[in-house]
Amino acid sequence: MEQSVGSCCGERNFEIALGVVKQRFGDRFQAGLSIREQHGHTTTWIENQIPDAVVFATDKHDVKDVIKICADYRVPVIPYGTGTSLEGHVNAPFGGISVDVSQMNSILDVYAEDMQVVVQPGVTRDDLNVHLRNQGLFFPIDPGANASLGGMTATRASGTNAVRYGTMKDNVIALEAVMANGSIIRTARRAKKSSAGYDLTRLMVGSEGTLGLITEVTLKLHGIPESISAVVCSFPSVDAACQVTMQAIQYGLPIARIELLDIATVRAINAYSKLNLPEDVLLLLEFHGTKSGVDEQVDLFQHLAEEMGGHGYESATTTEDRTRLWKGRHDAYWAILAMYPGKQAMVTDVCVPISRLAECVTAAQEKLTELNLSGTIAGHVGDGNFHTALLVDLSDSDECSRARHYVGWLNDLAISMDGTCTGEHGVGQGKISYLKSELGLATDFMLAVKKAFDPHNILNPGKILQ
Amino acid sequence: MEQSVGSCCGERNFEIALGVVKQRFGDRFQAGLSIREQHGHTTTWIENQIPDAVVFATDKHDVKDVIKICADYRVPVIPYGTGTSLEGHVNAPFGGISVDVSQMNSILDVYAEDMQVVVQPGVTRDDLNVHLRNQGLFFPIDPGANASLGGMTATRASGTNAVRYGTMKDNVIALEAVMANGSIIRTARRAKKSSAGYDLTRLMVGSEGTLGLITEVTLKLHGIPESISAVVCSFPSVDAACQVTMQAIQYGLPIARIELLDIATVRAINAYSKLNLPEDVLLLLEFHGTKSGVDEQVDLFQHLAEEMGGHGYESATTTEDRTRLWKGRHDAYWAILAMYPGKQAMVTDVCVPISRLAECVTAAQEKLTELNLSGTIAGHVGDGNFHTALLVDLSDSDECSRARHYVGWLNDLAISMDGTCTGEHGVGQGKISYLKSELGLATDFMLAVKKAFDPHNILNPGKILQ
Repeated sequence: MEQSVGSCCGERNFEIALGVVKQRFGDRFQAGLSIREQHGHTTTWIENQIPDAVVFATDKHDVKDVIKICADYRVPVIPYGTGTSLEGHVNAPFGGISVDVSQMNSILDVYAEDMQVVVQPGVTRDDLNVHLRNQGLFFPIDPGANASLGGMTATRASGTNAVRYGTMKDNVIALEAVMANGSIIRTARRAKKSSAGYDLTRLMVGSEGTLGLITEVTLKLHGIPESISAVVCSFPSVDAACQVTMQAIQYGLPIARIELLDIATVRAINAYSKLNLPEDVLLLLEFHGTKSGVDEQVDLFQHLAEEMGGHGYESATTTEDRTRLWKGRHDAYWAILAMYPGKQAMVTDVCVPISRLAECVTAAQEKLTELNLSGTIAGHVGDGNFHTALLVDLSDSDECSRARHYVGWLNDLAISMDGTCTGEHGVGQGKISYLKSELGLATDFMLAVKKAFDPHNILNPGKILQ
Repeated sequence: MEQSVGSCCGERNFEIALGVVKQRFGDRFQAGLSIREQHGHTTTWIENQIPDAVVFATDKHDVKDVIKICADYRVPVIPYGTGTSLEGHVNAPFGGISVDVSQMNSILDVYAEDMQVVVQPGVTRDDLNVHLRNQGLFFPIDPGANASLGGMTATRASGTNAVRYGTMKDNVIALEAVMANGSIIRTARRAKKSSAGYDLTRLMVGSEGTLGLITEVTLKLHGIPESISAVVCSFPSVDAACQVTMQAIQYGLPIARIELLDIATVRAINAYSKLNLPEDVLLLLEFHGTKSGVDEQVDLFQHLAEEMGGHGYESATTTEDRTRLWKGRHDAYWAILAMYPGKQAMVTDVCVPISRLAECVTAAQEKLTELNLSGTIAGHVGDGNFHTALLVDLSDSDECSRARHYVGWLNDLAISMDGTCTGEHGVGQGKISYLKSELGLATDFMLAVKKAFDPHNILNPGKILQ
């Protein structure tokens, strides 16, 4: 097996490619600096690397034409949805053309009887749920940002509901993509299950635009539960909150959401979202089901929580209260940035077997103190997944160096616990160096897939694999 | 993209390869005709194609050694678990060595706190559940046969519980495999979710031994529910039973099992398994949850069923009664064969969006009459998946021809309904010709994966792709 993706620069000719693409797309081809900068925007501390031009695609044929031209001249193609990814996915380290699919935002078919929907990649999760609301259906996957469903598919995103509803891996039925050779493929049909050959759907989910550009996604929907109850519960320590989480999962409680917030995160959210959450270590929970089923779940949870010193079960049963609560949770990233003006965030994303969660979170907290770093901890603890947001002054090289040390140390710790360096953010540029230590020889076979699908490495080069 | 896997016969030399393997494995190398015939046994009407020899592997190093020798001499390697697959997966159309992993049957680690288990591929689903019983955990995936977990992983199997617990795709956390180049890879770690690069786990699940031989599987377990209730419900027609199924799924009832049996299947099961099921079109259901949750589900289901003429809710709440009921269901294939002595079964496996299920099953029934074929219909209707078992006298060429016509017609019908020709049995040899019409250009990328992972086509050649 060969050991690298190889250069994307065979016989590349940017000048000709840009000219041909410009001619094809007219006003939908943009090369102004500010638009290019916006499309290389990475949300985080990762340095922006701007593309040479941006094409605003309106359908799959646009995407196909860009790819075919770029393939001819060996020019990179980088897909762009809402630009809310956290690991440099939209960066253009080798230049190239950013394909903005935000105008491909049609909801193409709602198959209410099959609880499925077909969307273009630029539809955002909020837009989809507004569209579905009157049909009693919803799409549960909710990363912090109001991301595009194409981007969420490409990064195998998850969020607060994954503990009950799974991640994008579990909720994409099929997808359409334009491949490096210009083929437009559909990976599966709409049956709920299939054994029809290799699972190309799952191969494309999480491939971060490196194997093909997603132009349509068929998603699984869920019925809006008859009854929903949200609960806020205080704990004496993150360890106690993690222990209760582990017990609730082991007990088989079908919790819809179970989110850990440390005190610093609670303070930031209260300030930013004008909430009055108790300034303790909190678990924010949500229970879905029938009325009696939800009551039963809440009772059981409270019983478990009390044994670990949990208290103060404020519940939010009105839609309005719940919306405010979860909006606050989703905006945590911005709340934390607002609390530390002038600092940038480095966000970790480890995920460990749930039996190791308490130990991992506690060690992460202690390490922050040891390294004298400002950081908050919050996470989707029902999945064993949590984020440290390190607040870093990028001009302070010592602080940067300590922060990088922390990130590496935590990734290594999670891997040593049989976990992963990335539970939901993806590899992008930021995690490439950890993939090999996490998966060893398996990465050779990722490279083999990449080379087979994209032999000239034009699709989002410099991401996932080096 | 090239259009075929290509020959497996580059510079192959069976004689030398067999000699080297025999020397390496001694008594665990067997070339007697009866053992070879048994290992090419396909359960069904598909012609047996026997391997040149069988190796009984006891660990991953054995598997690696066979693969390395066979790679050197371009000799096919066919994995064998319990031989219960239905599409000719264990056949050796180009000869080669069958690697029997039934002695690799250790349960390596039970991570009860994480609800995970690590098994060797030869462990059967029954053996695993017996092992887990005292820990309050179970593994739900249950194809009809007591299959090996390696084989179930390789064929992306499912069964009666998939409607609630998913298929092997959803229940394999990670796996270890020996690849064609001799690399032993582990596809993921034990975190509940991960975005760490391409999803090699899902790529290997359902790859039918064509991309690598599975030597270890990490599975997701589930808690044995507090309360379980099984219900048998009669319906005036398969259409009515399918309509109720669709409504129950749309209602969001978390049914654990919902199985359709036509009258012929019921009669066969009653006779074979000494049961007294009412000789009607039946739905066999099972509900899992807390005591009150199960009661609520049963009430809701009965309400839906009554509106469609459902009646006679016999329930089985004791473990013994339930075991007998589901054993009867699992033995349906053998029951049907026993009812038609001298005939072989051709089993279809279509799966359609649930909104099309009633129409598809009704058309399938009518077609049986039109073609004057003996056949039964049963299925995992909560997933939109059902099987026609055609009973065919293989010496009657006219009957065979009508049966083949039926199979092709039904596969085409399911595909035209945006469904699949195979919900759970896999492609093997029997479905190769339908894959292209189901997935079009996407099959080129399956071929690309196959060529990248197994350039000399030594791993289970002649399966999935041609």
